[in-house]
Amino acid sequence: MAVVALLTDFGLNDSFVAQMKAVILKVNPAAQIVDISHGVDSFDIYAGAFLLWSSFAYFPKGTIFVGVVDPGVGSTRKNIIIKTKNYFFVGPDNGVLTIAAWRDGIEKIIELNNEKYFLKQNSSTFHGRDIFASVAAHLSRGVNFLRLGTVSKKFKQIVFPAFVVDHDILKAKIIYIDKFGNLVTNIDHGDLKRFTAGKNFQAVLRGKRFNRYQDIYADSGKEPFFIKGSSGFLEISLKNKSAKDYFGVKYPQADFLTIRRSK
Amino acid sequence: MAVVALLTDFGLNDSFVAQMKAVILKVNPAAQIVDISHGVDSFDIYAGAFLLWSSFAYFPKGTIFVGVVDPGVGSTRKNIIIKTKNYFFVGPDNGVLTIAAWRDGIEKIIELNNEKYFLKQNSSTFHGRDIFASVAAHLSRGVNFLRLGTVSKKFKQIVFPAFVVDHDILKAKIIYIDKFGNLVTNIDHGDLKRFTAGKNFQAVLRGKRFNRYQDIYADSGKEPFFIKGSSGFLEISLKNKSAKDYFGVKYPQADFLTIRRSK
Amino acid sequence: MAVVALLTDFGLNDSFVAQMKAVILKVNPAAQIVDISHGVDSFDIYAGAFLLWSSFAYFPKGTIFVGVVDPGVGSTRKNIIIKTKNYFFVGPDNGVLTIAAWRDGIEKIIELNNEKYFLKQNSSTFHGRDIFASVAAHLSRGVNFLRLGTVSKKFKQIVFPAFVVDHDILKAKIIYIDKFGNLVTNIDHGDLKRFTAGKNFQAVLRGKRFNRYQDIYADSGKEPFFIKGSSGFLEISLKNKSAKDYFGVKYPQADFLTIRRSK
Repeated sequence: MAVVALLTDFGLNDSFVAQMKAVILKVNPAAQIVDISHGVDSFDIYAGAFLLWSSFAYFPKGTIFVGVVDPGVGSTRKNIIIKTKNYFFVGPDNGVLTIAAWRDGIEKIIELNNEKYFLKQNSSTFHGRDIFASVAAHLSRGVNFLRLGTVSKKFKQIVFPAFVVDHDILKAKIIYIDKFGNLVTNIDHGDLKRFTAGKNFQAVLRGKRFNRYQDIYADSGKEPFFIKGSSGFLEISLKNKSAKDYFGVKYPQADFLTIRRSK
Repeated sequence: MAVVALLTDFGLNDSFVAQMKAVILKVNPAAQIVDISHGVDSFDIYAGAFLLWSSFAYFPKGTIFVGVVDPGVGSTRKNIIIKTKNYFFVGPDNGVLTIAAWRDGIEKIIELNNEKYFLKQNSSTFHGRDIFASVAAHLSRGVNFLRLGTVSKKFKQIVFPAFVVDHDILKAKIIYIDKFGNLVTNIDHGDLKRFTAGKNFQAVLRGKRFNRYQDIYADSGKEPFFIKGSSGFLEISLKNKSAKDYFGVKYPQADFLTIRRSK
Repeated sequence: MAVVALLTDFGLNDSFVAQMKAVILKVNPAAQIVDISHGVDSFDIYAGAFLLWSSFAYFPKGTIFVGVVDPGVGSTRKNIIIKTKNYFFVGPDNGVLTIAAWRDGIEKIIELNNEKYFLKQNSSTFHGRDIFASVAAHLSRGVNFLRLGTVSKKFKQIVFPAFVVDHDILKAKIIYIDKFGNLVTNIDHGDLKRFTAGKNFQAVLRGKRFNRYQDIYADSGKEPFFIKGSSGFLEISLKNKSAKDYFGVKYPQADFLTIRRSK
């Protein structure tokens, strides 16, 4: 029973996601469909890529991920399927699939151009339904992925923003903000440890300072702190409060997070 | 494995939808339940009808649709099941089911009055759980729909609003607004083509003008345009922006969309 | 086919819920996963407990409920599984599980400390994925619940707030507010009947009065009224309007609802 996992920016109020699921179940009634998220901000490829990356490895081997955050639908950007070490990723060639796919190990990329596996009446505005869901359904039924199109050697790889170390300062970024207002950074616990070498640090975000690292939420008082988040990256958190509101962060990647180590 | 597809205005924060699913799975553990939407504005029968209409045809033959947007719950309005050419539609007799059902071809309507297939302890406020989910579950297990009640010859049919052509002006309406702010109209591409006969047009919505038809989103610049939407109707869109915000449209059906053809 | 029902305050925009589902399906591909709600206000244990309580009894016998509203994640609060007469409840020992579990009849409580059934790499911030989903999955595959840890005799029981009768006045509370703005109280129809002994009453909430009990929504005019809600408790409602907005209630339990009976 193949799992098909869906990630889109379609929201849950319209029937777009249901149309995708209907297409899948019509082709493969035994498909096990799981929603990753449909609450990605419209057209936010990076948020979509983060959510796919943060969750894919928990899914059973063979899971087919359909990731549709697609500002260029109908344009000349390609539709692709990526075969990785353990999974398949289906969606537009705009990067939304590639942080996760790269992490798992990309083995082959196919441009989806075999219309036999598309929905018969297909639109220029809803490839999520007409191409990606349809192709994923056929794949989940056992169609060999090589038959879905032609091998492609070129694809768009996006990456999380890099952090920069300049003498005693590390400049990092917020790459995602979750429902609780936790601020996910682009550095992990090992990065911080290597940088500070066990000494104290002073972190600044939007003019507000903090200097603590906590192992668990419950240790903490009213000050913000770094904690190892469930994705592996460090997060800036406040105990049972929103760090997003505390720091006044509006969007990921908008501000620099500066960490100064003690000499 | 029968698909039961749910459409309600219950939202996802309360446990109403889960109670419906629980009732279905208790009767038929093998039911495949799919959410169409639970984000319909409270009591908005037309929005519910649109969402059901826009998605039903993608579902496998035999799918049982449960549509509950039900301002009159507990009143004298009937509870019905509609057998159409390919599907079943279960819900209140207030029109929410009928745009979709009519399109598929209504074959028979049964008033749900066989309490044997209701939940034993049933409330006056939650027919979605106590009647519609329960009936759908029994139907999905193979109960003949004729046993669910008595044949009814009278039912409430709602329709999308009509458009009007008056000399060189076509007056249309917005019938749905999606998550991206696309404005779904009540005319399709063929309507526009027949009306303009290939000539130019000037469209006006809330005082703002536009005159373009686009085949795909990606063609377009900063101007609004008509595009063939995924439901078949023309939509008014802006490339990666919200046409809803651009035009200041608040609700479907509130404003006239006026299209004037060149002579 | 075991049902695993999930209740959290994680929201649906992030990938937290999907990570839990992925963990479950990796262990037990045949698990039937149902969402109760993920829209509980962050850390609101009472709202979570209400939603679990209002829905559990509709689920098939043997359903495994995973309830994660967990402000103390990573602290010394225990992780538990409660075996009740008909179900299993998995989550933190902070009360979120216990209104429902108590109602069904608690038979045994196990502290989850057998790490064999946890996710291998587990975090201090996401027990929902690393412990609760994993344990629920193993249980759904047939692992005996006694093997999940050690018997615990102590647990946190929370209860709905009590109402108070003082001569001719009954003081009640709002314990939940649903999507339609219905105000769920902590008294049921029998309570009101016994209190008023069939006579008239005057109810006051935030300075606004009403004196009606209705059997169904559709009977009613523009005045607020009590109605027997689908959970069994009385609710304060307005026909097709929000009682929450009418009375200006912001949060459950913030205000007293005062009912005075006629002598």
